Amino acid sequence: MTSPEEFTANIHRLIPIVAAMQIEVVEAEGNAAAARMPSGPNVNHFGTAYAGSLFTVAELLGGVLAGTALAAEGGVPLVKRVEIDFLRPATTDVVARTEISDAEVARVLAEYAERGKSDFELVTDVTDEGGTVVARTLGLYQLRRF
Amino acid sequence: MTSPEEFTANIHRLIPIVAAMQIEVVEAEGNAAAARMPSGPNVNHFGTAYAGSLFTVAELLGGVLAGTALAAEGGVPLVKRVEIDFLRPATTDVVARTEISDAEVARVLAEYAERGKSDFELVTDVTDEGGTVVARTLGLYQLRRF
Repeated sequence: MTSPEEFTANIHRLIPIVAAMQIEVVEAEGNAAAARMPSGPNVNHFGTAYAGSLFTVAELLGGVLAGTALAAEGGVPLVKRVEIDFLRPATTDVVARTEISDAEVARVLAEYAERGKSDFELVTDVTDEGGTVVARTLGLYQLRRF
Repeated sequence: MTSPEEFTANIHRLIPIVAAMQIEVVEAEGNAAAARMPSGPNVNHFGTAYAGSLFTVAELLGGVLAGTALAAEGGVPLVKRVEIDFLRPATTDVVARTEISDAEVARVLAEYAERGKSDFELVTDVTDEGGTVVARTLGLYQLRRF
């Protein structure tokens, strides 16, 4: 099983801008995925977390799940569409977390096995250290054969 | 009038992660705004432009317009929601461009003058060097008194 630290190292190697944001995968097991983003390199003109960084910490969880619950021979993750609501300013480090159901995992893997691709949706909450949800995304991804 | 180069320098100073992406404002005049993003620091696991970087080059144009067509005493831009569709992989540098109508500028500035805030929407196309639209965003912003 790939550890969160290994996921972090892989993502930093594959997507350098995620390394610049110092985003770390903190949960990568079963049907859940989570990543932490420090405030430091991700501030904006208000001194709060920049929108593009909040987008990123949520978006990349689709890729993490493609290496855990949705791992499939030859399968790679692709993001097709994201809706993001910025609900509150984030002044602390934040954690993005998502979860996929067993039924959805079974559906996606079956469709991928049959057709070589399958779309799936993820809802991700981005939460600050006080427990406030600062952003929420609805992401549409595709697991597809590379 | 603030030049595109001055916008770039300001944004890089205020939002360091945008500097890491090497995004440059290339148009900041009248009702239009555009920014260029090089492929180099923004690649993903497919060797194409990373979703979070494509999001950013589009999203920040709301802030540029808040310094041009929507410039108002004490007014700062805030992004509330973005929908982004990833239409095609981007293998080259890309340019994001948006435009706002005269009527919409007048409405936003009047509402801001009266209420101290006004929401506005922007549609932004992100285009590669071959002229293909690789991503499109619908952003909901707010001009508000700081």
